[in-house]
Amino acid sequence: MTDCEIILVGDELLKGERHDAHLPWLARVLAGVGVRVARAYTIRDDADEIRGLIAQRLGETRLLVITGGLGPTPDDVTREAFAAGFARELEFHNPSWQAIVARFESYGRPVTDANRRQAMVPTGGEVIPNAHGTAPGCFLDGGDTLGVLLPGPPRELRPMVERDVLPRVATLFHREPLRVETFRTIGVGESDLMTQFGDALGRLDAWRVSSLPSLTGVDIILTARDGADRGALDEGANRMEGQLRAGLGGKFYEHGIRSLDRVVHDTLSERGDTLAVAESLTGGRIGAMLTDHAGSSAYLLADVVTYSNESKVKMLGVQPEIISEHGAVSEETCTAMAHGVRRATGATWALTTTGIAGPSGGSEKKPVGLVYLGVAWDGGVQAHRVRYRGSRDMVRTRAVYGALWILLDRLHRA
Amino acid sequence: MTDCEIILVGDELLKGERHDAHLPWLARVLAGVGVRVARAYTIRDDADEIRGLIAQRLGETRLLVITGGLGPTPDDVTREAFAAGFARELEFHNPSWQAIVARFESYGRPVTDANRRQAMVPTGGEVIPNAHGTAPGCFLDGGDTLGVLLPGPPRELRPMVERDVLPRVATLFHREPLRVETFRTIGVGESDLMTQFGDALGRLDAWRVSSLPSLTGVDIILTARDGADRGALDEGANRMEGQLRAGLGGKFYEHGIRSLDRVVHDTLSERGDTLAVAESLTGGRIGAMLTDHAGSSAYLLADVVTYSNESKVKMLGVQPEIISEHGAVSEETCTAMAHGVRRATGATWALTTTGIAGPSGGSEKKPVGLVYLGVAWDGGVQAHRVRYRGSRDMVRTRAVYGALWILLDRLHRA
Repeated sequence: MTDCEIILVGDELLKGERHDAHLPWLARVLAGVGVRVARAYTIRDDADEIRGLIAQRLGETRLLVITGGLGPTPDDVTREAFAAGFARELEFHNPSWQAIVARFESYGRPVTDANRRQAMVPTGGEVIPNAHGTAPGCFLDGGDTLGVLLPGPPRELRPMVERDVLPRVATLFHREPLRVETFRTIGVGESDLMTQFGDALGRLDAWRVSSLPSLTGVDIILTARDGADRGALDEGANRMEGQLRAGLGGKFYEHGIRSLDRVVHDTLSERGDTLAVAESLTGGRIGAMLTDHAGSSAYLLADVVTYSNESKVKMLGVQPEIISEHGAVSEETCTAMAHGVRRATGATWALTTTGIAGPSGGSEKKPVGLVYLGVAWDGGVQAHRVRYRGSRDMVRTRAVYGALWILLDRLHRA
Repeated sequence: MTDCEIILVGDELLKGERHDAHLPWLARVLAGVGVRVARAYTIRDDADEIRGLIAQRLGETRLLVITGGLGPTPDDVTREAFAAGFARELEFHNPSWQAIVARFESYGRPVTDANRRQAMVPTGGEVIPNAHGTAPGCFLDGGDTLGVLLPGPPRELRPMVERDVLPRVATLFHREPLRVETFRTIGVGESDLMTQFGDALGRLDAWRVSSLPSLTGVDIILTARDGADRGALDEGANRMEGQLRAGLGGKFYEHGIRSLDRVVHDTLSERGDTLAVAESLTGGRIGAMLTDHAGSSAYLLADVVTYSNESKVKMLGVQPEIISEHGAVSEETCTAMAHGVRRATGATWALTTTGIAGPSGGSEKKPVGLVYLGVAWDGGVQAHRVRYRGSRDMVRTRAVYGALWILLDRLHRA
C-alpha cells in the first residue's frame, strides 16, 4: 500500500492547453508531513473513467487526492464520479449552498441553479470549506483509503490544503517530515561534479544521493534513508557542505532551496547595498526575477533594458565610438554599460548583459550564444566573456543566471 | 483501446523538484497528427513499477510513450524496465555506442563504462537517434501497442519526436489533424462571457465547446466533434468569430493560439512602429516577455524599470513635484512616465505601469492591487486606473497583461 496517489482531472491537461501546477506543490507540502507521493494520474473529464480509477485504487493507497472538475458546468463531473468511486450517493449540503449564495452576493451577481451541483456532498463526506471560490472540497473515509476531493484552481486548492488537509494528513500518518537536504551549484557540469565528489557522496551511508541538472546548474539532493540515525544524518550533511564549499567556492551558492535570484535578493537586502541593472539580450528578465520578491524596491534602483544601440548611448551614456569600434556585443560596451547605469543611478552595484541570443544575428567572429556579463562597483569593473549553447530561450536563461552568479560571487568577496 | 497514453518516469517529478514539461507539448504535437492523449502516468524510477505498468497497458492503448530515466547512472532504470515490460531482452547496439563515443570525443571528455548501458536496445527495437544527447530512444512493436522510449531532457526529446516519432505516428493512425479553434479574450469574466454568448455557443452543433479561464483572460475552445462536416465546422467557427468581434471588440484579441505578447509583437513588427516601456511594479516583465520573441529588437527601443522614485526623475525626467504631490502610484506619474520614456527614446509608442503589488505598501486610499497603466503616442496619452485582486504575483501578472492589452487596443485604433 502506498502513502499517497494523486488524480489530476481535466481534458485541458491532456490537450496541452494547460500545465499542471498541483503535483510539484502537493508533493512538497506532503513531504513536509512525511508523506511520499507514489504516483500521479492525469485523466479526462470522464465520469466513468474517474469512477473506475478511484475504485481501482481503493485499498491500494492510504491517501487518494483528486483535483479538478468541480465547476458548475456540465463537463465538470468529478464530484459525482468521486462519490460513485467510493460507492456513495451525493446529498445536498445546505451550509455549502449558503456559502455559495453568499459568495455570489458579494460579487453582486445572481446565483444560478447550475451552482447547486457544487453544494452536493457524498454521504458520510466531511466538507472542506473553500474560502476563495464556490466549490467546496471534501474528505471521504473509505476505510483503508482516505479520499480528498479538491477544486482545480491553485488559489482555491492551496489554502484548503494548508488549512485543512495537511493537519488531517499529519494526524493520519504521524510521521516525521521527510528529511531532504539540497545543495545548489552553478557553473559545473553534472559529470564533473560526480567525478569530483563521487567518492564523498558514496560515503554518505545515511543518505540517498541524487543529482538534478537544469539549464542553470546542478542540485545535489540528499534524502534520508528510512530509519537513518539523526546524528549520522547531521554529520553527513555537514561534511558534504564543507567539502562542497572547499572544492567549489562560490559555485556552491546555496544549502537549501532558495533560488539563485532569491539568494541575490537576500544578500543585497542584508547588506543594505543598492543595485542598478542594464540588460540587453536578457531584455528585462533580471529585473523581473528580482522584483518577484517583495522588498526588492529597497535595493533595486533601476533596470534599463537597452535593446537598441541608440538607447545604450542615450540612456546609459555609452560613447557611440565604443559601439562603432567594438560592437554592441563586446567587453568594452559591456563595461561601459555597467559604468553608465551606475553613474546614472548612484547604485552600489551595477550588473549588465549584452550578447547574441539568436536565432539570427550571429557571425563567425561573434556567434549566436556569445554573451558578455559585467559587474561594476566603487573602484572596479569586471566583464566575463561566455559562450552559451542552445536555443534563444536557453541562451537568455543561462545569461540571466550567469549574470546573477557573477554578482553574487562579487558580493561574497566584497 | 485508447489512442495514446504517456508514462512520465522520474522521482524528481513526484518529489516536487521538477515540473513536467512533456505532457502539454506532446499532447499538442500529437493532436497535430490527429492523435488524442487519453491518460498520463507519473511514476517513480522503480524498475518493477515501470515494467508492471507497461505490461498492464499493452493491448489497452495503440501508442505507449515512455520518457525519462535513460541516463547513465544506476537510478536510471527505464531502459531495462521498458524491455521487460514488452517481454524482451536488451542487446548491445554498436552504432548507438559509436555515436555515444563520438559525442564524448566532441566534448573532449573520456567516455565511461557507465555509458555503455545507454547503447543497449530491446530485441526487435528500432533505434531513434538522439542528436542532442547520449541516450538514444527506440520504437518497439508490441503488436496492438507501439512502444516509444524517449529520453527526459526536452532539448533531446523534442527534436526526436519531430523528426522520427510524428512521421511514424502519422503513418500508423492515418488521421486528419484534430481540428481545434481557439478564441482568446481578456477583460471579461468566464460567467459573463457565458451569459453573453451561451446561446450562440449552444448552436454550434459541429463543435464541442469548452472555456478555459486563466489569470489573464478566458479562452473559448472549439473542438470538432467526431465525423463533423467540414462545411458545418467552417460555418460555425466563422459565425462565432463574427459574434465575438461584434460583442467584445478589442477584448477578443486572437483567433488562434498566439499569446497576447506575441500578438503585440506581431502587430508592432507589421506596422514598423517602435516602442519604449517604463515599468514600475511589473519590474521588467513586459520587456522580458516581448524580448522572448526573436525580432523584438526591430521595435523595442528601451524598457526602463524605474523601481525607485529617484530613478523615475533621473531616467525618465518625471518632475519631482508630480511625485511629491500625487505619489508614485497616480495617474499623473503614470502619464509623466509615458511622456518621459517616449521623449528619451523617440519611440512611436510608450507603455507604462505603476502600482502597488503588495503584500505591503498599501493604504486605505491606495490599496494593494491599485495599478495605473499608461500608453502614449504622438498627440495623445491615456491612463487606466485598475484594481487587481490576489497575491503579489497575481497582481503583477494581471498588470503585465492589462498593459499589453491597452497598447494593443490603441494600436488597433491607430
